[in-house]
Amino acid sequence: MRRSFIREILDYIKQDTISFAGGLPNADLFPTKKLEEASNVIMNDNSYLQYSSSNGYDKLRQSIANIYTNDGFKTSKENILITSGSQQALDLISRYYSNKSITIEKPSYLGAMNVFKLNNMNIDAINMNSYNYSLDIFDKSIKKTKLAYLIPDFQNPTGYTYSKEQREFIINSILKNNAVLIEDSPYSELYFEKKFKNISSSIPNNSYHLGSFSKVLAPGLRVGYIRASKELIEPLIAYKEAMDLHTNNISQYILYEYLKNNNEFENHKNTIRKVYKKKSQIFQSYLDEILPEFIYTKPKGGMFIYGRLNHINTSVLINNCIKKGVVFVPGNEFYLNSNNQNEIRFNFTHTSSKDVYKGLHIIKKEIQKIKQCNTL
Amino acid sequence: MRRSFIREILDYIKQDTISFAGGLPNADLFPTKKLEEASNVIMNDNSYLQYSSSNGYDKLRQSIANIYTNDGFKTSKENILITSGSQQALDLISRYYSNKSITIEKPSYLGAMNVFKLNNMNIDAINMNSYNYSLDIFDKSIKKTKLAYLIPDFQNPTGYTYSKEQREFIINSILKNNAVLIEDSPYSELYFEKKFKNISSSIPNNSYHLGSFSKVLAPGLRVGYIRASKELIEPLIAYKEAMDLHTNNISQYILYEYLKNNNEFENHKNTIRKVYKKKSQIFQSYLDEILPEFIYTKPKGGMFIYGRLNHINTSVLINNCIKKGVVFVPGNEFYLNSNNQNEIRFNFTHTSSKDVYKGLHIIKKEIQKIKQCNTL
Repeated sequence: MRRSFIREILDYIKQDTISFAGGLPNADLFPTKKLEEASNVIMNDNSYLQYSSSNGYDKLRQSIANIYTNDGFKTSKENILITSGSQQALDLISRYYSNKSITIEKPSYLGAMNVFKLNNMNIDAINMNSYNYSLDIFDKSIKKTKLAYLIPDFQNPTGYTYSKEQREFIINSILKNNAVLIEDSPYSELYFEKKFKNISSSIPNNSYHLGSFSKVLAPGLRVGYIRASKELIEPLIAYKEAMDLHTNNISQYILYEYLKNNNEFENHKNTIRKVYKKKSQIFQSYLDEILPEFIYTKPKGGMFIYGRLNHINTSVLINNCIKKGVVFVPGNEFYLNSNNQNEIRFNFTHTSSKDVYKGLHIIKKEIQKIKQCNTL
Repeated sequence: MRRSFIREILDYIKQDTISFAGGLPNADLFPTKKLEEASNVIMNDNSYLQYSSSNGYDKLRQSIANIYTNDGFKTSKENILITSGSQQALDLISRYYSNKSITIEKPSYLGAMNVFKLNNMNIDAINMNSYNYSLDIFDKSIKKTKLAYLIPDFQNPTGYTYSKEQREFIINSILKNNAVLIEDSPYSELYFEKKFKNISSSIPNNSYHLGSFSKVLAPGLRVGYIRASKELIEPLIAYKEAMDLHTNNISQYILYEYLKNNNEFENHKNTIRKVYKKKSQIFQSYLDEILPEFIYTKPKGGMFIYGRLNHINTSVLINNCIKKGVVFVPGNEFYLNSNNQNEIRFNFTHTSSKDVYKGLHIIKKEIQKIKQCNTL
């Protein structure tokens, strides 16, 4: 099995490496103090240390259900299954559908493609790029597979966001074909201007909506969740039990305490949105200044800027850049057959402006070296 | 897939149900204060909130390696992979061996059998019982399967502990057949008199040794680990990454802090050993007094007393007992083909003496009712 480029290099990049690689939240924004306060409360008794239910901590499931309901998507705790991060949710669902077929975007999240392969799924990756995303191919594919995996908001890696019309198309296509959608939404709360309406709420009986606290709060807690109809949730519980009995209680209890004060969470999300929007703008202005040949589409939220460098093999480029202390992810990593040459995913949330400037200049220099060699 | 009886009833037993069912540690013994202190230390900076390496928190891996080394089994952190509880370790390893064959004890841990089945393994369950456990069958089986799963110390469910001679036999059999052993050791530290030497240390290149903090510290943290040669550990990391990226940091950091004071952990283990030994003795004396027809072998450690009630179908008995507020696990649950009639597993660590007395009397009454019906 192929390890993620990002996770593999995480193991050996140095302290001073400038990283545009991972989908790492900015650590300066972690609500450290508030999480510590929540932790102090839960330690007043020791129930968090015992075994608990496989579907998750009841009170946290209720809090998450409330968030959906307040957002206009009526949800009870029976619709919620807590997982050890969204990654486990993907593994869990694809185990249930093992040996079946699935429609996915191309490019897509490597961690999802890995579990689909691990579970012997037959993957139909349909071409998408921000310039020309034809949904007719989706309709053709879902007719056969009956199951789709999409990241409609600020997609990983492309940053692409589905339009209202495209969402309508997906809804109709799913219903018409009596199919099921796995809607992965780790970045949905990280919008710059406005929130996009999730697709699942229009097809509650034909969807798994995947959420996570990793991008909006803190990934180290490893808490994600699946929102689905009771009929779809029920059979997953036995798998969750076989996989790790249940998600760690300490993170679940802390999150429950933290979420009790709803304003706290809302304010925190507003802060990240503002900061990430600003960071995205700075990244773009440096890109336009330093690497004007990088062609990309402006994201509407999320963590990534994706684009291409014509005539540059970005897998070669990354190997040179690592040695000079800068990393990004070459587009190659997000394709099933590693056949992409020129694309790059930049993360803009993690790095300081100073390092963005420095890092992009290092990349520019390495691009020039490759160009010189190409013309020799 | 079949859910665990224990986990399934956990969801709906009442506050005042007397439970001899789960492998629940006694909550009164959790080192709550010390874990809280450790938690206060780690919250001084927020690095525990960020993503980390798939093989686990480096410092904790080193601490665990030290525990092995101090115990005479030379281990470096490269030999350690942290998992989200031992359950995930079982799933992880059996995914790596999916579609292969495996030799297991009969009866055995349901959670292990579940993941073996989930990963399409061909299970050869060899008959064991404390009166007549013939290892020749083991030798015959491993010759074909080349892979075995055993719980040599205070086995779940039987409480059985392998003798020195039996361990020697296993070692030779594994080496002779160039096979691999998965040695599951969640209870090994819970010995009453003396520690038994693990089998893995004699076959370090042919074994996975599975450990967990669930039974000796606190299951709610969900931290377990695999100890194996670098060659065996290496390919597992990609699976771990696909399954949940990495185990939650907060528990890993707390455990590292807690383990720093080695005396603390040793003292804690000594306390549990004493208390559990005492609780086991009390349970046995009540059994002998109240249910003299229950035939069992005295355990040398662990959490369970296992035995049989001749002429009583314990799956019928449990259904009657649940209604009267007492639960245990019928032996049936630990067999692949649910063909066992008369056996029972009692957990003795979780319940107070008063409740043991009360609970066993309720069971006695229900047994008498069944007997009366049988003779009608």
